[in-house]
Amino acid sequence: MAATPIPVNAIVKRSYAAFEQYRNTTLAGRAAFLERIAVELEAIAVVLVETAAAETHLADARLRGELQRTQWQLYSYGQACAEGSWLDIRIDRPLEQPQGAPVEPSWKVSERKQDLRKMLVPLGPVVVFGASNFPFAYSTAGGDTACALAAGCPVIVKAHPAHAATSRLVAAAVERAAVACGLPANVFLHVEGGLEEGQALVLHPLTRAVGFTGSLEGGRALFDLAQQRPEPIPVFAEMGSVNPVFLLPEYTKQNASALAKQYVQSITASAGQFCTNPGLLIGVESPELQHFQKLLAHEMAAIPPAEMLHPGIATAFQHKRADALDVDGVEVAGTLSCPVGRNESIPTLATVSGEDFLCNPLLQEEVFGPYSLLVRCSDHAQVLEVARSLKGQLTTTLMATPGDLRSFAALQPLLRERCGRFVCNSVPTGVEVAPAMMHGGPYPATTDSRFTAVGADGIRRFARPLCYQNWDDDLMPPELQKDNPLGLLRMVNGEWTRAGF
Amino acid sequence: MAATPIPVNAIVKRSYAAFEQYRNTTLAGRAAFLERIAVELEAIAVVLVETAAAETHLADARLRGELQRTQWQLYSYGQACAEGSWLDIRIDRPLEQPQGAPVEPSWKVSERKQDLRKMLVPLGPVVVFGASNFPFAYSTAGGDTACALAAGCPVIVKAHPAHAATSRLVAAAVERAAVACGLPANVFLHVEGGLEEGQALVLHPLTRAVGFTGSLEGGRALFDLAQQRPEPIPVFAEMGSVNPVFLLPEYTKQNASALAKQYVQSITASAGQFCTNPGLLIGVESPELQHFQKLLAHEMAAIPPAEMLHPGIATAFQHKRADALDVDGVEVAGTLSCPVGRNESIPTLATVSGEDFLCNPLLQEEVFGPYSLLVRCSDHAQVLEVARSLKGQLTTTLMATPGDLRSFAALQPLLRERCGRFVCNSVPTGVEVAPAMMHGGPYPATTDSRFTAVGADGIRRFARPLCYQNWDDDLMPPELQKDNPLGLLRMVNGEWTRAGF
Repeated sequence: MAATPIPVNAIVKRSYAAFEQYRNTTLAGRAAFLERIAVELEAIAVVLVETAAAETHLADARLRGELQRTQWQLYSYGQACAEGSWLDIRIDRPLEQPQGAPVEPSWKVSERKQDLRKMLVPLGPVVVFGASNFPFAYSTAGGDTACALAAGCPVIVKAHPAHAATSRLVAAAVERAAVACGLPANVFLHVEGGLEEGQALVLHPLTRAVGFTGSLEGGRALFDLAQQRPEPIPVFAEMGSVNPVFLLPEYTKQNASALAKQYVQSITASAGQFCTNPGLLIGVESPELQHFQKLLAHEMAAIPPAEMLHPGIATAFQHKRADALDVDGVEVAGTLSCPVGRNESIPTLATVSGEDFLCNPLLQEEVFGPYSLLVRCSDHAQVLEVARSLKGQLTTTLMATPGDLRSFAALQPLLRERCGRFVCNSVPTGVEVAPAMMHGGPYPATTDSRFTAVGADGIRRFARPLCYQNWDDDLMPPELQKDNPLGLLRMVNGEWTRAGF
Repeated sequence: MAATPIPVNAIVKRSYAAFEQYRNTTLAGRAAFLERIAVELEAIAVVLVETAAAETHLADARLRGELQRTQWQLYSYGQACAEGSWLDIRIDRPLEQPQGAPVEPSWKVSERKQDLRKMLVPLGPVVVFGASNFPFAYSTAGGDTACALAAGCPVIVKAHPAHAATSRLVAAAVERAAVACGLPANVFLHVEGGLEEGQALVLHPLTRAVGFTGSLEGGRALFDLAQQRPEPIPVFAEMGSVNPVFLLPEYTKQNASALAKQYVQSITASAGQFCTNPGLLIGVESPELQHFQKLLAHEMAAIPPAEMLHPGIATAFQHKRADALDVDGVEVAGTLSCPVGRNESIPTLATVSGEDFLCNPLLQEEVFGPYSLLVRCSDHAQVLEVARSLKGQLTTTLMATPGDLRSFAALQPLLRERCGRFVCNSVPTGVEVAPAMMHGGPYPATTDSRFTAVGADGIRRFARPLCYQNWDDDLMPPELQKDNPLGLLRMVNGEWTRAGF
C-alpha cells in the first residue's frame, strides 16, 4: 500500500498562519516556551534515551548527556531571547540643529529630521533538517529549532529517517509545550518523508529560511535549490569539516604520550561521528613525530569497532576510508586486525607525506567516522604550504609550545583565515554551548561564514532588521518605546543605555 | 585599437595580498583612514561636483549634498568602527563547578571548561558595484566601500561607466588617503571594464563578498553567479523597489492639497531616480481620492522634463513607462504635454483600478524615474488584497490618521512583513544616515533581508565571527584581552561590561 503523500503545501500554509500569531509573542513568552520544551523532554527522558539508543547505536550515557545539552540550549537561548540584546535595537531621534557656530568640517554632522527605531523581527517559517549523528542536539528540538523559535519563527522539522521514532517523541513533547504555553499548535510542525518532501519544503514560497546539519552533498543541494528559487532564501547549512590539527615539533616531543591518549579519544569517541572530529593531523617529519605516530597507532588499534549510526553512514565510512587509503602514498599506520560487523566502524590512523597530500585534494575530504590522516611534512615550509591548501573548516587547532608558536608565526594567520574556531592545545571536539562559541566557518564548513549554529547568536540567522520611521510611541512594539518598559540594552542616539528618553 | 584587457586575476591577487596586512589594522587606524578619505574628497569637492554634474546631469546642489552625505558616511562608519560594538565580542571563561547542592533541574547549568573569546573578523576582498544614480554616496567611496573598509576588508571597485571620470577622481582620493595613512595602496583598487570584467571579479576564488546597488536584473545576475561558484560568497545586492504608499481615507480627505505637494516632490526630485521613489500609491475609491488625484496630476503636469542620468536609464524609463501604460485599465492621470528631449524624463501619474492592478503583476515592476501609479481600490478588503499581493520592498508607507490606523488595523502587519523600513505620515525618499536606518528589505528589494546598506550596521555584511579557544591572553588581539585595553563594550560570561576580568 502506498504511503499517504505528505501535503507539503498545506503544512507550510499552516506554519505561515501560525507565524502571523507567533511573531507577536513577547520575548518572555518565547523564553517560557523554550523552557517548557526542556521540561517536557525531561518528563520523557528515559524513553527518549532508550528509543534513541535503539535507533542510533549511541551509548546511553552519551545520549543522556546530549539530551541535557539540548535542554540547556533550549533554556539558555530562551534566556538570551528575553535578555534582548540580540534584537540590535538602534534608536535615532530627530536632532535639533546645533545652535551657535557651525561645526567644521560640515560633514562631521548630519541633519536628522526623522524618528528612526530599528529592531530585528522574525523571517517567517523555518524548515529544519536535523543531523543523524545528534538525534537530540542538532535535530527535532535542537539548536536550529531553538534559535528559530527564539527569533519568533515557526518551525517545520523534516524528520531524519535514521531516528524517526525519537523524532516523533520529541515532536510530541514540543507540541505539548506549545499547548501548555497557549501558542498555536502549528508553531511547530513535524514532517516525515523523503527527498521529494524535503525539496518541496525548501521550494515553497512561504518558507523563509532553512537550517541544515549534515553532509556537504546534502547541504549544497538544498542551498542550490533555495538560491535558485524565484525569491532566494537564506540557508544555513553546517556541513562538517576535517578540522586540521597542527602538531608542532617541540610540543610533540614534550607531550607525545599524552597527545596520543588525548587524540585517540577525540578521534574515536561516538565512533568518530562528530563534525568537529580531527580528521587531519599535520606534523614535521622527525624521530619524535614517528614516535608519536607509533603511540597513536597503538592506541587506535586498541579501540574496538562500534556500530555506526545507520547502514548508510557505515557504508559511506567504509567507501570513503577505502578511497583515501587507495591514494598514492597513503599507508595505514594503525587499525584493527579483528573482523568487524557489517555496520561497524574500523578505527584507523593513516599516514601520508606532505608532498603526496598536496597532490591529492581527495585527502581533504571528510571520512566521517573514527579515521584520521597524519600528514608528515618534510619541513617548515611544507607545513605552511599544507595550511595554505586547506579549505574552510569549522575548526583549526595548534598543539604548540610558546617556542613553537614563535617559530611557526606565519602559520597562525593562515589557520585563522580558514576556520570559525581557532583552538590552542586542546581538541576540536566538545562544542560548548555558550555565547562565545562559534560553530561555523568558511565554505565548505558552512554555506555562510557570517553565522553560527551554536550559541544564542545563532538566533540572528532567522531574523531581519525592521525600521519604524515616524510612528507614534504607543503604536510601536514595547522594545522600541520611549520608556523602555522591558529594560533592554539599546543604542539611542549612538549611546548604549537601558534608560528611556 | 583594442583596449588593454583588465588583468582581473592580478588585481584580485593584489587585493588579497593587501588584505593580509590591512586586516591587522587597528580599529582606530581604520577610522583615521575613512576620515582621511573624507578630507581628500573635500580637497577636490569643486571639481568632483563639476565632473559628476557633467556626467550625470544631476543638479550641483544635489551633488554637493550627496558628496557631504558620502563624507558623513565615511566619517560616521569610521567612528562606529572604532566604537567597536559591531564586533559582537563574547567572552566565556571556564567556570568552576558550583559548590554545595547541585542546581535543579540540572539542565539549567552547563559545564564550561574552555576559555572562549569571539569577535568579528573581516571576510577578505570585497568587490563593489556602484549605482549610476548616486555617483558619490553609493559608488566608488560610497556606503559599501566605507562598510567594507571599516570591517577590515580591502575593496575592489568596478567603476560605473556612466560616471567613469568622477569615479577615477574619487579613486585617486582614496588612494591618496591610503598612502597618507601608511596603508598598502592595494587596499583599494579601481577597475574599469564591462560585463566580462565584472563577472570575472565575482568569480575569482579570492573574492570573498560582493556589494551591489542597481537594477533587479543586474543584481540577480551577479547573485546567481556568486552562488554557483564552487565556494559561494555573500552578495548584498540592493535592487530598488516600488515603495508602496497607502493613502488612507480620512488622512487623504483632511490633507489632500498638502499630500499632493509632498508627493509630487518625492516622486520627481532628481528626475525620480531614487530607489526609495514612491512608485505606487494606493487608496480607496471616493470623491476625496479623485480630488487628490486631480491635485497630484495637476502638480505632476507642471514638473518640467529633466535630463536623466544616462541614455540607458532614459530608454529604460521610456520603455517601462510605455509598458505600464499599455496594461489594460491603466490611464494617464497627469503628465507633460510639451515635447521632451531624447534623454529626458516625462513626469507621469498613472492610475488603475484595484481589480486591474491585482490581475497584472507587471504593474508591480519598478519604472525607474518620475513615475507613480495610483491604485484605486473598490473597498477596504481590496486594499488588504493589494497589500497581500506586494513583493518585498525597501519601504512601505502609511498616510493615516489615528482613526484610519484603527479601521485599517489589519493592514499594518501585512506591510511590516513586506519591507525593511515602515514609514508613517512621511515620504519614503530621504534615507538618513544613522545607526537606526534600515536600507534593505525582503527580496526583490535586496538579496538578503538580514542586512542593511545604510548605517554602520552595514559593516556586518563583510565580517564573520572567529572564536579563539584556550589561547594565552597576550596571543589574542587587544579586543579580546583580559584588561580590555580598548575599553570596548563586551559580553563577558553573559553580562555586558567595559571592565576587564
